[in-house]
Amino acid sequence: MPDPLFQHWRVRVDAALTRALPDPTTSPQRLHAAMQHAVLLGGKRMRPLLVYASGALCGANETALDAPAAAVELIHAYSLVHDDLPAMDDDALRRGQPTVHVAFDEATAILAGDALQSLAFEVAAQAPVADGIRVELLRTLAQASGVAGMCGGQALDIDATGTRLGVEALERLHALKTGALIRASVRMGALCGGADADRLQALDRYAAALGLAFQVRDDILDVEGDSATLGKTAGKDVAQDKATFPALIGLDASRLRLQELADAMRTALAPFGDRADALAALGRMAIERDR
Amino acid sequence: MPDPLFQHWRVRVDAALTRALPDPTTSPQRLHAAMQHAVLLGGKRMRPLLVYASGALCGANETALDAPAAAVELIHAYSLVHDDLPAMDDDALRRGQPTVHVAFDEATAILAGDALQSLAFEVAAQAPVADGIRVELLRTLAQASGVAGMCGGQALDIDATGTRLGVEALERLHALKTGALIRASVRMGALCGGADADRLQALDRYAAALGLAFQVRDDILDVEGDSATLGKTAGKDVAQDKATFPALIGLDASRLRLQELADAMRTALAPFGDRADALAALGRMAIERDR
Repeated sequence: MPDPLFQHWRVRVDAALTRALPDPTTSPQRLHAAMQHAVLLGGKRMRPLLVYASGALCGANETALDAPAAAVELIHAYSLVHDDLPAMDDDALRRGQPTVHVAFDEATAILAGDALQSLAFEVAAQAPVADGIRVELLRTLAQASGVAGMCGGQALDIDATGTRLGVEALERLHALKTGALIRASVRMGALCGGADADRLQALDRYAAALGLAFQVRDDILDVEGDSATLGKTAGKDVAQDKATFPALIGLDASRLRLQELADAMRTALAPFGDRADALAALGRMAIERDR
Repeated sequence: MPDPLFQHWRVRVDAALTRALPDPTTSPQRLHAAMQHAVLLGGKRMRPLLVYASGALCGANETALDAPAAAVELIHAYSLVHDDLPAMDDDALRRGQPTVHVAFDEATAILAGDALQSLAFEVAAQAPVADGIRVELLRTLAQASGVAGMCGGQALDIDATGTRLGVEALERLHALKTGALIRASVRMGALCGGADADRLQALDRYAAALGLAFQVRDDILDVEGDSATLGKTAGKDVAQDKATFPALIGLDASRLRLQELADAMRTALAPFGDRADALAALGRMAIERDR
């Protein structure tokens, strides 16, 4: 598992994020500090790693990848800030830290999320690639973030609370809520490397399987994990009566589904040989992680 | 005053907005319906009109202007949805209609705002102009929306509640909170017409004066207007002890400041002759409006 490479990419994206975020010693300080809190206090950086790994596979320059890697993490960070709000999931703990509305206040959390979303597009617009690719990066990120992606999935999730979803509906929900941004990460990396339609399609099959695997693992961890390791409240899904894979199909079948998704990832990456090692390792991480 | 022209542009942008918004009969319906409610139930469309008027002055094709005009209105609409939330201004009435969190619920309002912001960038990324101009439109919109623009101004506004701002600090607040998006509107129209740096600069002086005039007029209306005409709660600023121009410098001096800003707009537009008639009329509208 190329761990030093992942560490190198994490350092790169954190540097890009630090450059992009507004200085918390300048006015309005409270907003700037809340944005830092949301972005810089941890996180696995899974989406940026996917941008770098997919970009490297397609021969993109690392410098070109910093902007989309930072941009997708900014979108992810804003979504967590808003999801944690009292009117949404009402969560006090995130990555082992108080959530933004707890550490600051609700108005600041709403605003920090909004500003992080704008910043994501501002950063993506600065990617040092040809204008045509930049437009495509921006379009990819916007579509994955909006109604046909993350926001749409979150809305399905809210609508589903208290109702009985089937497995198919649950998979659709996750394909939007977390899958869309994961697929966008892989696509943006590949776009920066000038990937053709065939390559984009093969990588998208990998990304779609990864996105779902990530969520199945999340649901299993909510049942099996403890809050200290997770850095967030365990057992929350069950307490909120949310549809999860373990609740719908049981723990054993959920673990089996994870293995099927691992196979789907391997099949999608096979044509690329060892050049796909980093993406394959990220796939395994999503499936084997304990937080 | 070219009113039929404005009406023509309003029809154009409303058509573009209707095309861009997700169908409220498809799932997730509640989110889609909330987005429609936020965008299609009225509004003066001041920012889109500025895009069209500035674009027309610079010789842009009307078809090219639909995307930035719709995009800036989507950003404006999302900001109103979030500003009205209980944790922010806690407003129940907007454009004579219940606000989104009242008509729907708070979670849906947060999410609808988020999705409208993503949609704005998705729409701008589809503008039928050269890729280089499209990137510049997206960058302009993102910068004006974020910490160095609208969100930053809103944060200054929150920080200022209960404190005594000076006139200079109040003008800085408004330059960000409302001014940035108004300047972006004028700039995006001009960019679509291929305006050079000199022209962009002259138009920006007009836009900066207009943005401030708009806000001074807003403050005066909060004192003088009634809720029925305004379509929102009058006297709210005074009740919330917010810094306003009338509170800081008095009503007469506020009216005088409006006249100075009208002069600044005229001076900035003078080099363009009658080609600037539409922009000049929009400036007068901002100053003379009663809602």
